[in-house]
Amino acid sequence: MSRYQHIKEAACEANKQLPGLGLVVFTFGNVSVADRSLGVFAIKPSGVPYDELTADNMVIVDFDGKTIEGTLRPSSDTLTHAVLYKQWEKIGAIVHTHSTYATAWAQAQRDIPIFGTTHADHATIDIPCAPPMSDDMIRGDYEYETGFQIINHFNGKELNYEDVEMVLVGNHAPFTWGKTAGKAVYNSAVLESIAHMAYLTEQIKPGAARLKESLIKKHFERKHGPDSYYGQEK
Amino acid sequence: MSRYQHIKEAACEANKQLPGLGLVVFTFGNVSVADRSLGVFAIKPSGVPYDELTADNMVIVDFDGKTIEGTLRPSSDTLTHAVLYKQWEKIGAIVHTHSTYATAWAQAQRDIPIFGTTHADHATIDIPCAPPMSDDMIRGDYEYETGFQIINHFNGKELNYEDVEMVLVGNHAPFTWGKTAGKAVYNSAVLESIAHMAYLTEQIKPGAARLKESLIKKHFERKHGPDSYYGQEK
Amino acid sequence: MSRYQHIKEAACEANKQLPGLGLVVFTFGNVSVADRSLGVFAIKPSGVPYDELTADNMVIVDFDGKTIEGTLRPSSDTLTHAVLYKQWEKIGAIVHTHSTYATAWAQAQRDIPIFGTTHADHATIDIPCAPPMSDDMIRGDYEYETGFQIINHFNGKELNYEDVEMVLVGNHAPFTWGKTAGKAVYNSAVLESIAHMAYLTEQIKPGAARLKESLIKKHFERKHGPDSYYGQEK
Amino acid sequence: MSRYQHIKEAACEANKQLPGLGLVVFTFGNVSVADRSLGVFAIKPSGVPYDELTADNMVIVDFDGKTIEGTLRPSSDTLTHAVLYKQWEKIGAIVHTHSTYATAWAQAQRDIPIFGTTHADHATIDIPCAPPMSDDMIRGDYEYETGFQIINHFNGKELNYEDVEMVLVGNHAPFTWGKTAGKAVYNSAVLESIAHMAYLTEQIKPGAARLKESLIKKHFERKHGPDSYYGQEK
Repeated sequence: MSRYQHIKEAACEANKQLPGLGLVVFTFGNVSVADRSLGVFAIKPSGVPYDELTADNMVIVDFDGKTIEGTLRPSSDTLTHAVLYKQWEKIGAIVHTHSTYATAWAQAQRDIPIFGTTHADHATIDIPCAPPMSDDMIRGDYEYETGFQIINHFNGKELNYEDVEMVLVGNHAPFTWGKTAGKAVYNSAVLESIAHMAYLTEQIKPGAARLKESLIKKHFERKHGPDSYYGQEK
Repeated sequence: MSRYQHIKEAACEANKQLPGLGLVVFTFGNVSVADRSLGVFAIKPSGVPYDELTADNMVIVDFDGKTIEGTLRPSSDTLTHAVLYKQWEKIGAIVHTHSTYATAWAQAQRDIPIFGTTHADHATIDIPCAPPMSDDMIRGDYEYETGFQIINHFNGKELNYEDVEMVLVGNHAPFTWGKTAGKAVYNSAVLESIAHMAYLTEQIKPGAARLKESLIKKHFERKHGPDSYYGQEK
Repeated sequence: MSRYQHIKEAACEANKQLPGLGLVVFTFGNVSVADRSLGVFAIKPSGVPYDELTADNMVIVDFDGKTIEGTLRPSSDTLTHAVLYKQWEKIGAIVHTHSTYATAWAQAQRDIPIFGTTHADHATIDIPCAPPMSDDMIRGDYEYETGFQIINHFNGKELNYEDVEMVLVGNHAPFTWGKTAGKAVYNSAVLESIAHMAYLTEQIKPGAARLKESLIKKHFERKHGPDSYYGQEK
Repeated sequence: MSRYQHIKEAACEANKQLPGLGLVVFTFGNVSVADRSLGVFAIKPSGVPYDELTADNMVIVDFDGKTIEGTLRPSSDTLTHAVLYKQWEKIGAIVHTHSTYATAWAQAQRDIPIFGTTHADHATIDIPCAPPMSDDMIRGDYEYETGFQIINHFNGKELNYEDVEMVLVGNHAPFTWGKTAGKAVYNSAVLESIAHMAYLTEQIKPGAARLKESLIKKHFERKHGPDSYYGQEK
């Protein structure tokens, strides 16, 4: 049995959750799961339908994007995953989808405004949309540069990837991440729900106001602050 | 067996109905069911997925928000439920969700206009949206104050909680209630449907007119007046 | 066995199709099926959930609205069905729902414009929206007058109920009909689809043009004219 | 056994996929699959529900539209399929639906703008919308002329049917094609997804900019260029 069996199983299971959550059709999305002690991640093979995925056909790749184990070609987005794992040391899993509402905001090249507590439970700021890359970056190593475009956008805005676990890439689609596969997939579904509600909010009230700071702070701390009181973890 | 077994079972069953009705994803909602003779209610534990709920892991809480029985932490919205039960003496169950369309109206801080008979069958007025709380209330005992924000809004508008069993909390999300768990859950689904149709109505006809009073009165009385003739109850 | 067994079974089956087609939630809709040789129709009992319906609990009513057989109270919309059967002699079944998109057009008090061949396959004109009733009619025998409001609107516009098997009642919701239960239910689903597409068409192109007459004529005749060549019937 | 058994089975299976992908209701769509060595295609019989389809009731038609085998009447759109097979020699399958979002763009008589990489993965240009036919063409052999309307539009715009495997027919609905049945059905689902996202993009940002050329080129070549690196085929 592969020494990477645990992350291959976790990646397979997480990829298979995407269609049921309404986040992907056909092969439009991929999840990877890392083992940081081994310096690798397991990722979906490219172009394989979700119902044909098994732990065995996951591909093991290192943080420079080199395939370590597996007979299939890894997801075409693999280098983006590799860059994020290499630069952001506490990420355990990454999800990329073309989910309908989040992708529409990405195509509109707009941050998703924070309009309510559903959003504030998960992030204290608008969901950032990184601008499309320069033509030089696009003509270069595209997926590799996509990873740096995300990281540069976070750095430029002084955002912390542990506070905001989701991003839109302008004209492209969303990426989310988390410490575990479950959290990264959860974040993708939450992002789609936030994107849907924000779209409707602006339709119902053009020029709707952003949530006020006191509410943002309160809701985020309910779930994430040192005195959080949501869930059973503490 | 717990002396609260009947409300634990009712609360468990009602919570489990929410995902099937399309009103929640993950753990974004909670139902409580009261036994007024015992002065307590059973409520969903915080952060536990719906398919892991059992009657045994429901939490019993009194109307001051004190946990009476149960090993898990109750929903983070528990104090809001407690306040509503204490102030409104004929409520038997409460539902809180972040359902998509109702939450979008809450985020837009707008009452849902009464545009048709589907709405009039359930309420004779626009569905009220309580304004976001003051910063002082937010920094205080937040969930407790959320309950009072709802009650104060009803009092200020001279609304009767038995006539209007649903409310939006501005920038947050909806709460519904009823004499039974079934009715409170039904009200949440009806509210979502009304919110969806009202959104579409304004898109199809900007500035659409509210329903005229004669039709409001007629439809509400079909279901609720002394001469009601809907259903099999009389 | 009841001499009305055949229409009780047909009505039960047709009512049960509504939730699966996404046209109703809870008890928000009803189907009736007539036997014209017996001068009666079978209709859903009021307020009973679809999964509790059986042929036995259907109610048999004559064309004046008098209950002939059955222990439950018939749908509160029964008199509207009775009027339509009495006035329009070739109708074999009637469906009433509050389906989301059709109801939104009714709430907007707008005819649904004919924008494409999907619509033209089923009607050669905009789907008519009867205006809300006068206050006198509302205060009178409401459901009975709803039937006449529909018929008067068709007469005033010189529409033929055999050519246009669907109508919106302003501020209320749609009714559809047909020679058989299957056709009436089909018409309800088609209307919802047409209503959805027409809404989107106007969002995508404000002021979109109606379909030109040559295409309307061609598509309708493909399915309905003397030289129709759709389906297997001829 | 019929010498056309292989395409009858393929056509039957492909037609049955349409409802599960949310692309059709009732009988609103049809798939055909060709065998070019035999000069024929298998197509859905007209007006038969998807769950009643079997390989045996598929109809075999030649590229002039003449029925070669089968007892049922073929789809009323058969001549459109025949023209496309005859003119475009590398097509192996054709799908016609009235899917909601793609049809709404067709009804609006608008090309679908290329707003993101989801679109660019499948086409380098806006999805073309052929104008409605002239009255002469409509009064003539309608389905035959529909095929020529599509081909003339591609020729007039100098489009290649191998590069762009989808089209909207103005006021009507979409057609897609591909070398295999699987690809043609996939294209129909992708088109519906692109149409949905493009609609949302314009709602979220009126006047949204089209994707820049460098990104269009990059994404299309990831999947289709000589150095493509998507999927497992190479």
